[in-house]
Amino acid sequence: MTAAASNAPVVRVALLGAGTVGSALIDLLRSRAAQLEVQSGARIELGGIAVADLSRARAAHVPAELLTTDGTGLVTDPAIDLVVELIGGVEPAGSLVTAALEAGKPVVTANKALLASARGVALRTLARDRGVDLLYEASVAGAVPLVRVLRESLTGERIRRVMGIVNGTTNFILTRMSEQGVDYGEALAEAQALGLAERDPSADVDGFDAAAKAAILAGVAFGYDMVIDDVEREGITGIEPADIQFAARSGYVVKPLAIVEVGDDGQLAARVHPAMLPTAHLLAGVREACNAVFIEGEAAGEVMLYGQGAGGAPTASAVLGDLIDATRNVRAGTTAPVPDRLPVRLYPSSELRSPCYVRIDVDDEPGVLGQVTRTFGDHTVSIRSMEQDAQAGGARLLFVTHAARWTEVQRTVEALAALEPVRRIGGAIRIVDGPESFGTAVPVGGSAR
Amino acid sequence: MTAAASNAPVVRVALLGAGTVGSALIDLLRSRAAQLEVQSGARIELGGIAVADLSRARAAHVPAELLTTDGTGLVTDPAIDLVVELIGGVEPAGSLVTAALEAGKPVVTANKALLASARGVALRTLARDRGVDLLYEASVAGAVPLVRVLRESLTGERIRRVMGIVNGTTNFILTRMSEQGVDYGEALAEAQALGLAERDPSADVDGFDAAAKAAILAGVAFGYDMVIDDVEREGITGIEPADIQFAARSGYVVKPLAIVEVGDDGQLAARVHPAMLPTAHLLAGVREACNAVFIEGEAAGEVMLYGQGAGGAPTASAVLGDLIDATRNVRAGTTAPVPDRLPVRLYPSSELRSPCYVRIDVDDEPGVLGQVTRTFGDHTVSIRSMEQDAQAGGARLLFVTHAARWTEVQRTVEALAALEPVRRIGGAIRIVDGPESFGTAVPVGGSAR
Repeated sequence: MTAAASNAPVVRVALLGAGTVGSALIDLLRSRAAQLEVQSGARIELGGIAVADLSRARAAHVPAELLTTDGTGLVTDPAIDLVVELIGGVEPAGSLVTAALEAGKPVVTANKALLASARGVALRTLARDRGVDLLYEASVAGAVPLVRVLRESLTGERIRRVMGIVNGTTNFILTRMSEQGVDYGEALAEAQALGLAERDPSADVDGFDAAAKAAILAGVAFGYDMVIDDVEREGITGIEPADIQFAARSGYVVKPLAIVEVGDDGQLAARVHPAMLPTAHLLAGVREACNAVFIEGEAAGEVMLYGQGAGGAPTASAVLGDLIDATRNVRAGTTAPVPDRLPVRLYPSSELRSPCYVRIDVDDEPGVLGQVTRTFGDHTVSIRSMEQDAQAGGARLLFVTHAARWTEVQRTVEALAALEPVRRIGGAIRIVDGPESFGTAVPVGGSAR
Repeated sequence: MTAAASNAPVVRVALLGAGTVGSALIDLLRSRAAQLEVQSGARIELGGIAVADLSRARAAHVPAELLTTDGTGLVTDPAIDLVVELIGGVEPAGSLVTAALEAGKPVVTANKALLASARGVALRTLARDRGVDLLYEASVAGAVPLVRVLRESLTGERIRRVMGIVNGTTNFILTRMSEQGVDYGEALAEAQALGLAERDPSADVDGFDAAAKAAILAGVAFGYDMVIDDVEREGITGIEPADIQFAARSGYVVKPLAIVEVGDDGQLAARVHPAMLPTAHLLAGVREACNAVFIEGEAAGEVMLYGQGAGGAPTASAVLGDLIDATRNVRAGTTAPVPDRLPVRLYPSSELRSPCYVRIDVDDEPGVLGQVTRTFGDHTVSIRSMEQDAQAGGARLLFVTHAARWTEVQRTVEALAALEPVRRIGGAIRIVDGPESFGTAVPVGGSAR
């Protein structure tokens, strides 16, 4: 960065990590220098870039003279005013962010793994105690300004539920399965070929990425220090074309949802799982790798935010928004508002109620249907509808239940699996079509046909 | 408001206007007092409520002892720290807001008419010069946090276009026409019966309300001091069932759009008009009286915000978010960021290019089609497709053009109207299905069949 002619004060930024997002950020800082100076009131200069390996090939616009492998030295350098952490993972990022905050330096991070860990909870506490900004808009849903809207616009709101698509890879896979009729394996292979999924896709397809984001959203929306393990998690690997087809002919679409909601008595529950959504729902129209999140507030009603959830430029744009914020706050001697700790307590999502879809392949024998429906009834899960398809040498039963506790549905599935004529059970899929999941009444059940 | 036991500093608020939104705000301030104190760091107390008429019947929760007709006395009362203006209209709201800002008091307002007037431009300048907050999230799209997202989250972004549905009444009317096949008059009558449209619906159906909001958005997104008259405006009163039906069978839906966009050379254009949108577009799924706005940024990509655009509680929720912000800023001795003046200049929207739909009823005579298509060609408007329907004693021609300048389309329509066999021309409707409207090349034209 060359010295500019302006008299604006200089804010020196340490960048930790120079991967896709870091590289995009360096580009934005350079190409928008004049605009950023107007908007932040300061000249934002890069003071150093910490990387793991100096010898790695980098884009031409990454200034080689600023590279260092001494991250700790960089963040504690008195010449550095502000730290942007884009390394990812819990360590060494956690130690470097701690060092920065302890030195009173604001930190902007996109690190969802760190923020959703116990270490992340400690960092938020540290930032609060020291009165230093720790901003992390880019950690959830890329360019979609969820964190700021929850923290600032809806700050006077009583939030009921935050529900959305926060993982682009699984949304892409399910979109392909829905629109092109391919199976999970083919859709995953396409996502991998496009660079949307890793060679080991587990972080996405098993729901870890979305669960970390749900934990972060719980913190911002409800002030609860949630970690990833507090989020009930189910992946999309069990979804089959038969489920997608059933959804389509029943007016639903299968979407990968993250849901954090609070009941009337302050029970807070967070979960990540594929769900059937009515096709008329706005989230059903969120296709490909896009992200979108509904926020349901008591006075505001439903607010939805939509955008690109990943990618270098969108994520760097979110980092830049936070960076300008932090710079303004440093200059004004203030900090961004911190989410308040509301009186909520963790509640197991498996106790929430929703209608469910269950696919069962059985031998085509007399009495089988009776045995199956009795099993639902035994677990007080009431059946709303049933379809029967002939299969080679057997029958496929597709059930939709009335709203039922997820634990009861799981127990039903286990009991069904133990029945002699049951050959195979597809993963049960929850249906999300109403606001009610904290039902307190036990389902009446027993009405199975 | 009774004195609380807490030691938090008190911020005294003057409320101007106690209609639907004011009344909802009073309710929120009371019912969420504890939460608001945590979030704002201060006890927010109502210090007075200015109304036009003391004798009017009010909700029981509006404290009668705080009512006054002396608005000026109230805002200049040294005991008042902050002013919330919910009167609406340019006067007396403008004078009261001026008095408050001149006294160094932050103002939160939901007043789109004021903000989109020359008076509003002067108020924003005054607030900037005095270093006092003038916050107006609630003036555009109710609970949808457009202003904050543009001003803060996307502050480092190069915004290209802001496009959306910002008037719930016209969206409701067009939704009813599309989904229930009713005509404009019936849909309007239903909107009026539901309280969504005024007895004189002009402010909504002629696009004035949306144009004011577009002007405000131009200010926030591009820092341009736009007033309502700078916005090209077309209402929805000319839309007929035939147009809705054509849209439906062609894969479009007719939506009331507000569009503010900037060209590569800094030409800023703002317009409000009904448009045909592809049904797969997310805005096409925004039904009833809901609002939604797309923001297209260079790095962030497309971000969409959706929610309830009107109503007491959603609007009061937006006011409350600003009120907490202003309170925090007063305590921190800072102000919210002010939109920057970017190097843009106003450009006539009528010079923008888009494909258009035109409905023409003609006598069914030999040579008429040739006459009509020649007229398109004479104005360098190239035809993409044509449908011909037999009508009682004549024919209806439905054209879709290639992208053409709106002025040329209007001239074509005028010339067509002058043709002897043309009986009636339906209002031309622009089709919005691509990002390109600042085309610089003159359409080649002349290819009309």
